[in-house]
Amino acid sequence: MAIPTPPDSQFIIGVDLGGTNIVVSAMTLDGSRLFAEASAPTLAAEGADAVVARMAQMVETCVAEVQRETGAARDAVLGIGVGAPGTVNRERGVVLVAPNLQWRDFPLGARMTELTGLPVTVDNDANCATYGEWWLGGARGGRNVIGVTIGTGVGGGIIIDRRLYHGSTDAAGEIGHMTVDLTGRRCGCGNYGCLEAYASGSAIAGRAREALAHDESSILPALVDGDLSQLTAAVVYRAAGEGDAVALEIVRDTAKFLGTGIANLLNMFNPDTVVIAGGVTQAGEALFAPLRTEVRRRAFKSVSDACRIVPGELPGTAGVVGAVASFIAQTTGHPPA
Amino acid sequence: MAIPTPPDSQFIIGVDLGGTNIVVSAMTLDGSRLFAEASAPTLAAEGADAVVARMAQMVETCVAEVQRETGAARDAVLGIGVGAPGTVNRERGVVLVAPNLQWRDFPLGARMTELTGLPVTVDNDANCATYGEWWLGGARGGRNVIGVTIGTGVGGGIIIDRRLYHGSTDAAGEIGHMTVDLTGRRCGCGNYGCLEAYASGSAIAGRAREALAHDESSILPALVDGDLSQLTAAVVYRAAGEGDAVALEIVRDTAKFLGTGIANLLNMFNPDTVVIAGGVTQAGEALFAPLRTEVRRRAFKSVSDACRIVPGELPGTAGVVGAVASFIAQTTGHPPA
Repeated sequence: MAIPTPPDSQFIIGVDLGGTNIVVSAMTLDGSRLFAEASAPTLAAEGADAVVARMAQMVETCVAEVQRETGAARDAVLGIGVGAPGTVNRERGVVLVAPNLQWRDFPLGARMTELTGLPVTVDNDANCATYGEWWLGGARGGRNVIGVTIGTGVGGGIIIDRRLYHGSTDAAGEIGHMTVDLTGRRCGCGNYGCLEAYASGSAIAGRAREALAHDESSILPALVDGDLSQLTAAVVYRAAGEGDAVALEIVRDTAKFLGTGIANLLNMFNPDTVVIAGGVTQAGEALFAPLRTEVRRRAFKSVSDACRIVPGELPGTAGVVGAVASFIAQTTGHPPA
Repeated sequence: MAIPTPPDSQFIIGVDLGGTNIVVSAMTLDGSRLFAEASAPTLAAEGADAVVARMAQMVETCVAEVQRETGAARDAVLGIGVGAPGTVNRERGVVLVAPNLQWRDFPLGARMTELTGLPVTVDNDANCATYGEWWLGGARGGRNVIGVTIGTGVGGGIIIDRRLYHGSTDAAGEIGHMTVDLTGRRCGCGNYGCLEAYASGSAIAGRAREALAHDESSILPALVDGDLSQLTAAVVYRAAGEGDAVALEIVRDTAKFLGTGIANLLNMFNPDTVVIAGGVTQAGEALFAPLRTEVRRRAFKSVSDACRIVPGELPGTAGVVGAVASFIAQTTGHPPA
């Protein structure tokens, strides 16, 4: 009888492919160990072939490191899970549309397998971040979970009964493009009043710039040496932390919009956990306190009582952890343990 | 070896308990036959005991009819599925809160079993209507389905992978209380800008009344003999059918609000089917054509291309059919065939 390999001696490589950076790390099958991650610029402008070659090289480095640190054979590495920024077809391992990479119908899974000889699964990056936070982060223990990832845009993931819910064509979870104000701000997608038009990092910076046009007391301009084009959401959170009135108002308004969107999600999905990840969590309780108030105001009481709203706990690594979790779910048909 | 009873010789009683009427009907286990339904006023003001006694009596009449028509033994009736207007706890068969009945924590399942000797399952009425339309109505063949039921209020149901999705505390699918206009119309729930505040039957009548204050050419007042308190959504649909400009504008605006809410559902759930049931379907293409346009405008193209939006096909019986389907799902663990 063959002795089964223990799950902490089998490894999966997670790849978080972003518009700006690629992050790669190895994990044990049981999630007990996450190896140090490597990061490199995506340089999408060099073209898909160059990006894939870079990813494959980072994977090889990562595999070599696992072997060196653990003495494992190469076949102890079971495969690669990739989270990609766009819509995907999981079954075919294809990235359908990824605006930040300017990819269209790109066979990412097949190309990575050619270069590495390893099985590859592909999933959406926000789905992966949500699944990572569920597996090992802030949403641990949840059964029905909504993830909201706030960066340049607003993305999302939906976990139902401990499985990522992908919808009919792998496109579910576009939380950023929920209309919360029918006739409101124009969104990058062309529509009006999407959550992303208010709560994304760039919307927060944009709203701060607008507010500064009518205010001379704020410390925000000084924080960017007077160059408002350098104003980012992170700067707004920092100023809010120092009590700046304009920044605090922007954060409170963000909480109101986000809270409305999250209340909608609660009334639809009745989840046990909402996990909010991304730079916005830097705003801390200045954001989360009014956010929870707005959710309680707009969601049904029994529904909001049944749901915790928590910040993500895996900044920088939720995507790779979730890409590994998605690999496990796609190849075994079961959620990771 | 016992010969198994064929599924068309086993029966389940479906009960659609509404705030105004109770509808009861029997079905075969395989859905191949729906017996004629009986209907009686709920008379909620008489109290829960009287309502339950009436329901039980209607069930007995129905069982007797099944036996008379088919010659089946009483034990060929497997049980009763009830759809109730409010939040429920399915596991305990309890109606938690039903504002229209003024019930709170009422053990409906246990009480019905006491009176009939039959197993009883309880589910939410809008969930049942959605499940009925999926099993035998307009959403047949769907895998991931959203049901929107528009009557006095706006309710909803969510089917994921051919199963009703109930969420963490059986409260999922409150589509009517999705905010689509943050600072918009006041809703009966106390909040602002809920879909129900625009698209429910009473909201449609209310908006028509407001529009008439600035219009003298409409035929609407004549249709209610000048008594605008008698104006209902059905009257608005009739006038729209006759080309009345005010009524047509109300229907188009309704399509815009409903379309925004449904686009949100598409971007979240990526369903293959949305089924819209209730009186609003009487408006026909005057509603559905601009509704589909608004959805296409606001939902991602790949998502809206993958989804059909259809009217319900079981007016009056979707609730009982779905209550039977929910009984089958709850007692067997599998969706009905």
